[in-house]
Amino acid sequence: MPQVPLDDLSRFAEAILTATGMPATTARQIAEHLVDSERKGVTSHGLSRIPRYVEQIESGGVDPRARVTVPHEDGAWAEVNGGGGFGIPAAQRAVEVALRKARGTTVAVCGLVNCGHTGRLGRYVEQAAEHGFMAIMFGGGGGLNGYRQVAPHGGAKAIWGTNPYAFAMPGGRYGPIVVDFATAVAAQGKLAVHRTTGEALPPGWIIDAEGRPSQHPEDFYQGGALLPAAGPKGSGLGLIAELVGGALLGPPKDFNWMLFVLSAASLRTPADYAHAAEAILDSVKACPPQDGVESVMLPGEIERARAAAVPPGGLEIPQAIWDEVCETAERLGVHEQPEARSSAAE
Amino acid sequence: MPQVPLDDLSRFAEAILTATGMPATTARQIAEHLVDSERKGVTSHGLSRIPRYVEQIESGGVDPRARVTVPHEDGAWAEVNGGGGFGIPAAQRAVEVALRKARGTTVAVCGLVNCGHTGRLGRYVEQAAEHGFMAIMFGGGGGLNGYRQVAPHGGAKAIWGTNPYAFAMPGGRYGPIVVDFATAVAAQGKLAVHRTTGEALPPGWIIDAEGRPSQHPEDFYQGGALLPAAGPKGSGLGLIAELVGGALLGPPKDFNWMLFVLSAASLRTPADYAHAAEAILDSVKACPPQDGVESVMLPGEIERARAAAVPPGGLEIPQAIWDEVCETAERLGVHEQPEARSSAAE
Repeated sequence: MPQVPLDDLSRFAEAILTATGMPATTARQIAEHLVDSERKGVTSHGLSRIPRYVEQIESGGVDPRARVTVPHEDGAWAEVNGGGGFGIPAAQRAVEVALRKARGTTVAVCGLVNCGHTGRLGRYVEQAAEHGFMAIMFGGGGGLNGYRQVAPHGGAKAIWGTNPYAFAMPGGRYGPIVVDFATAVAAQGKLAVHRTTGEALPPGWIIDAEGRPSQHPEDFYQGGALLPAAGPKGSGLGLIAELVGGALLGPPKDFNWMLFVLSAASLRTPADYAHAAEAILDSVKACPPQDGVESVMLPGEIERARAAAVPPGGLEIPQAIWDEVCETAERLGVHEQPEARSSAAE
Repeated sequence: MPQVPLDDLSRFAEAILTATGMPATTARQIAEHLVDSERKGVTSHGLSRIPRYVEQIESGGVDPRARVTVPHEDGAWAEVNGGGGFGIPAAQRAVEVALRKARGTTVAVCGLVNCGHTGRLGRYVEQAAEHGFMAIMFGGGGGLNGYRQVAPHGGAKAIWGTNPYAFAMPGGRYGPIVVDFATAVAAQGKLAVHRTTGEALPPGWIIDAEGRPSQHPEDFYQGGALLPAAGPKGSGLGLIAELVGGALLGPPKDFNWMLFVLSAASLRTPADYAHAAEAILDSVKACPPQDGVESVMLPGEIERARAAAVPPGGLEIPQAIWDEVCETAERLGVHEQPEARSSAAE
């Protein structure tokens, strides 16, 4: 696999995005977000997005020169408008606005509207937790616009998106605890992997176009649907996100989003909070694992371990993704590609 | 089954609670909450709680004369203290405080501490939605105090409670959409039913004391654990609730709770919101059902239908629950029992 130093990767991603007409600061935010996802092993929200983002700009679907604005602020509430651009700079602004407001009002909520793909949701709540805030973020509302991948509990047709939720809490010496999930039983990216490999899906993931249980990934793409996680629980969360994104904040461009933050330091001293949180997290890490499990992991622990384990020579990028990113760069006239060493993937 | 008119039931429950020394207004709030759960078919949070509540008062675990206070208010935040009493009047006060505050600040958050059992969580968010608010409520933090029923994902031992979440949104002519769930794969009440009947559990609900999968309900009570809903998803939500209840708001009496509300009317006109929400809910009700499912139900729809279907003669109460409630009444010197007609249960 090609192996590229992290800084070179970020600069390359930024150069590609800048070549579309995107301002440098926006390009840098998006590049850093995607490289951060890639190094945490969340490849579905990493470099593979660059060719997709460029396509969306070229088709006119997303405005690379969009400016993020905050048209409404009131009490503990603010609306952040992405101006029709990508969701990453808009969500980043929502984090800044929410944390600033919550320092005064203990809690704050931002609605995030009029934007495209927001990248990895967990990143925003993680940033809030790094600054000592609890955070909840979720979104949806695209079902009536055609974002239909998931069936409601008991239903035979997809009627809304994977409407994800993310939660984070500061974790003392353990670092932020980050929970980030789709309300479907599995993310679409995992279906795509099975489609490529031809491997059968685990039972309970999808139904076909007639609403029958299926283990063939192709059935999803032929009018089938993902099932909701934990039946009525994931289905209920999906519907709440659909109502928030599509009715309360809507109508959305793709999805709309809601971000809640609460300043932990307004309730307890940071030392008291950290002491209590660490006692709880100690009890999780001390929990004996089930057979076949090495140890109980905290939410976000695997991602942090992956990020810390990037070898000195750089991040290993799957060949197909790297080739596609380089082709996109060439097409946009970005010829200074970083040197990719060849690494024998384990 | 005994069949008792709703008003008679509420008065009877109130009389029993008053006989413990509880002030009449508190007794009325708790009685109405439990009867409301019973008529919605949530029997685990209905009349069967009365003997348990009386036992908790008699053992000194809960103070029937507790006064609910609001010791801290700041910006959009308030802390509600249950004074060591039952959680129902305290949670009811949290709803009132949160809605009052959010009318000024668009959003508000209440922390709810120092209280016992809060009853049916869905009721509080439902009330907020009835008044035009979105609401989220969740709690936990009892693990280090011995409330250990659920194992973390991959773990072989129970280390925290069923740490439930509830979400609600106004639904226009459909009424409030209420999502209310334990973060374990099943609630403890369902295990208890299987224990009584001796019926095997569905696979995936519990592990035994050695962390092995089991379908024998007794294994849960002999040191086993419930598994988290949807693996890492329910486990992550359970841990977030544990940190909020046990570290941010803690240490708890049993569990601590967090209630978020947001005024929908501050963002869109009620007519605009209702129109958009109804379009989404129409699409859910229009979704073709899977084979064997009559129709796709909205979250909370079954409970509302049950409440509307209470026969004119009164609510049917399972004999064992009715007998236990009447015995508790007798013991406390409440001799005016409502007349229970005998109904042939279908």
